[in-house]
Amino acid sequence: MGFQEKLQSIKNLMRDYKYYEALSSLFTWEQWQQLPTEGNDYRQKMQGFFTGKMGEIFLSDTAKQGAIYFSDFDPSLLGDDMERGLVRSFLYLYNNTTKVPLEKQVELASLTAKAQKMWQEAYQASDYSIFKPALEEIFRLKMGIAKYIDPNKHPFYVLAGSADEGIEIEKVNLLFKELRNGIIKILEKINKSSVNIDDSCILQQFDKEELKTFIKYLVEATGYDSSRGGFGEVLHPFAVLIGPRDVRITTNYDTFKFGVFAAIHEAGHAMYAQRSNDAVVDMHLWGGNMGAFHESQSRFYENIIGKSKEYWLHFYPELQKRFAQFENVDLDTFYKAINKVEPSFKRVVADELTYSLHPILRFEIEKDLVEGNANFNMLPELWNDKYETYLGIRPTNDREGVLQDVHWSMGLVGYFQSYALGNLYGGQFRRAMLKAVPNVYSEIAKGNFAPLNQWMTENIHQHGRVYSPDEMLRRVTGEELQSKYFLDYLKEKYSQIYQFDLE
Amino acid sequence: MGFQEKLQSIKNLMRDYKYYEALSSLFTWEQWQQLPTEGNDYRQKMQGFFTGKMGEIFLSDTAKQGAIYFSDFDPSLLGDDMERGLVRSFLYLYNNTTKVPLEKQVELASLTAKAQKMWQEAYQASDYSIFKPALEEIFRLKMGIAKYIDPNKHPFYVLAGSADEGIEIEKVNLLFKELRNGIIKILEKINKSSVNIDDSCILQQFDKEELKTFIKYLVEATGYDSSRGGFGEVLHPFAVLIGPRDVRITTNYDTFKFGVFAAIHEAGHAMYAQRSNDAVVDMHLWGGNMGAFHESQSRFYENIIGKSKEYWLHFYPELQKRFAQFENVDLDTFYKAINKVEPSFKRVVADELTYSLHPILRFEIEKDLVEGNANFNMLPELWNDKYETYLGIRPTNDREGVLQDVHWSMGLVGYFQSYALGNLYGGQFRRAMLKAVPNVYSEIAKGNFAPLNQWMTENIHQHGRVYSPDEMLRRVTGEELQSKYFLDYLKEKYSQIYQFDLE
Repeated sequence: MGFQEKLQSIKNLMRDYKYYEALSSLFTWEQWQQLPTEGNDYRQKMQGFFTGKMGEIFLSDTAKQGAIYFSDFDPSLLGDDMERGLVRSFLYLYNNTTKVPLEKQVELASLTAKAQKMWQEAYQASDYSIFKPALEEIFRLKMGIAKYIDPNKHPFYVLAGSADEGIEIEKVNLLFKELRNGIIKILEKINKSSVNIDDSCILQQFDKEELKTFIKYLVEATGYDSSRGGFGEVLHPFAVLIGPRDVRITTNYDTFKFGVFAAIHEAGHAMYAQRSNDAVVDMHLWGGNMGAFHESQSRFYENIIGKSKEYWLHFYPELQKRFAQFENVDLDTFYKAINKVEPSFKRVVADELTYSLHPILRFEIEKDLVEGNANFNMLPELWNDKYETYLGIRPTNDREGVLQDVHWSMGLVGYFQSYALGNLYGGQFRRAMLKAVPNVYSEIAKGNFAPLNQWMTENIHQHGRVYSPDEMLRRVTGEELQSKYFLDYLKEKYSQIYQFDLE
Repeated sequence: MGFQEKLQSIKNLMRDYKYYEALSSLFTWEQWQQLPTEGNDYRQKMQGFFTGKMGEIFLSDTAKQGAIYFSDFDPSLLGDDMERGLVRSFLYLYNNTTKVPLEKQVELASLTAKAQKMWQEAYQASDYSIFKPALEEIFRLKMGIAKYIDPNKHPFYVLAGSADEGIEIEKVNLLFKELRNGIIKILEKINKSSVNIDDSCILQQFDKEELKTFIKYLVEATGYDSSRGGFGEVLHPFAVLIGPRDVRITTNYDTFKFGVFAAIHEAGHAMYAQRSNDAVVDMHLWGGNMGAFHESQSRFYENIIGKSKEYWLHFYPELQKRFAQFENVDLDTFYKAINKVEPSFKRVVADELTYSLHPILRFEIEKDLVEGNANFNMLPELWNDKYETYLGIRPTNDREGVLQDVHWSMGLVGYFQSYALGNLYGGQFRRAMLKAVPNVYSEIAKGNFAPLNQWMTENIHQHGRVYSPDEMLRRVTGEELQSKYFLDYLKEKYSQIYQFDLE
């Protein structure tokens, strides 16, 4: 088989893979939207069946031969960026999915099922000791699994690399130290600031149906294309990629702030995913890079755009028109309310400034555990100490502390860094965008989102996963990942809100 | 491989087949409920992919060997009814799906795609000549396809047999003659009757949301289990079997009569499908016999139950409470309104009495065409003549006439008989039910649906497709299919409503 046939053969595998991936997304959507309670048993079996079929794709002889052929192939000999993207994505998926023996995958599945129950029990009782044995087992098993994927790298690097393609742990560690220290410094200034923010306006009760209608209007005006998606309501919001032109978003309407900003966040994921160009779709590279890179797009729209003054300069009059709650609240008060800095124990409701500290400290703890600088007995104390040191608040029990996230019980070790890295990407993209389109915010203030969305689409969104996160960043910003751009942005924004001097 | 292994191997094939069948149902639901317009292209490709995978199941060596092994196997040597049902269903599916060469299937797919466009064009223009060439081609191709499935039978028998397992055309023809003549006789009496039914009460405008809420209440009270399903809104109502405990129904709310009775009809399909017992589910025989038999369950609930006096004795007070439109309408007027006999050109909105004439005359026309007693040039005249003879009304153009149904353009030849046969099954089941549970209607009048649903579940619903339609009928009624029970029921009901003497 010649080069063209080999290329076509892995292209076909990627096509099939995407069908199963899209199907899995459809099942996720269904699970929360429509699946009746009694339908769950059969659906689990059905999903298991199709997951098995998906796994068979990369276990085929064709896949094996493709992997051998292209592993040693000089990428510069490939015709263009699209072909390079195809080969890169194929090898990345191949290496991450085929090297773990089936019995280890089964062991992990049964362990995580057990661990999630243990975690729930522990969370209810606020007692880490219930969860600890399962947690230790999960870390041990995941480290073992990482060895299969790449025996030459530290297993923690391998796991993080499965979540974020091309990630380098030591570099992340360095960036996180800079980011952490920078945020803590800003937080200290805020603590000393005389500015007191009254956010009672967004803590009021809102009519659910009216909020729903407003949020739909808001994200569509921001750039989310409903003819390529749809809206759903769930407890824990998500976006699902059911097709290159079918990316649906969800939120909940429990509070104004969560409902609105979770929706913009998910719309950020969705706009990235639904804007792959036709050639990228045909190459089965639609939907974008996963992990931190996808998170950069959601957090960009949620915070850098959605919590900007200019965004609400445009939308606030409409908000006031629709909700009597804001009748006597001026824009400045509202703007400060949505940007109020308030350290808390919960990552998912954290403000923009302190948010990154939550994933950073989890990443640090994971690293300490796998490198032997911490053990599972000391975990609750270590967790609480870090919250006290970084955020200035100390969890008073395990539920507020080490049991906060379900992630570890699901086997997600080496995963938390994505949430903070996404912010760094976003800050760096923001700077490039402002250089190229200096009037982007003033246009947003006029309700013109075209310059923003055009720049994002042209430079990032349309390319799907043609380029790796690192390549994409270099193409757009000319540099590798830095912490300073996001930190500069935070300093500028919060020094204005809390009126402190930049040193 | 021994008997047990052979049996297990076809059981596994049936399990996989059901997963794809359920997936295909999920796609149908999605298509009408949530799929965004722009998402359609990719979804078509994705569906094509999974349909191909489904086809591979019965093309496997395992399937081939299973078919060879069990084709000559004496069914009485099988362990029990469940095993017999498994083998029977496997062979039925195997024979209907594997014998047609792939190129013929592709030819049919492309022809029906073209034919549906031609039909639409013809329908718009009310001009049969636009559709005729495609229609002729479809009949020719379908007859050819039937030869592959069974070269020893008349192709029309084969096609009808693919829709209705075990059907015998000559017997159907005989039953239909009896049914047709019987209905025409009743219709003549009604035409001479002095009873004039005023159905203006159900032709009023109704608030859509309130109608929706009422219909949900109604079908749940009738026995539809929402925890094993869900509700949707579409133009052409359907029920979808997404799992043994996930059978969703749809209706539309354009008119009171259509909305309510389409919902009860679909709930009838759904109750049958969602009540397979656990052993039947485990044997992958859940969901029931397709074609006429499934239609018997939907039409039973829609008409024999849902348009009975007793049904509304219970529900009418609630209906009156909810809708001011019925405030000054008594039950008798309402009951007569929903049972008003009014010949029309449209099968889908036909009343209970004349309904069967629509599919019967289509069946007769198909039979005449394939047996050479009619040709495609004379089709519009033939169609109109039959409407005039049977229903006493003559279509004035092709749209009212021969272009009424989309079915033929979709390749559904030998399919219409299901719609009328279902009524015969229903009438025969009704008689058996009344023998076993004489107070079933008086209990319904009290709002107690347990006797009805228990009898249906125990005798029919729980068995899924363990027994063929014919076996099922004999088990429950002790006889083969007859026309007289349904005709007796019609005579009894309509002689009361229209006050004529039974001869």
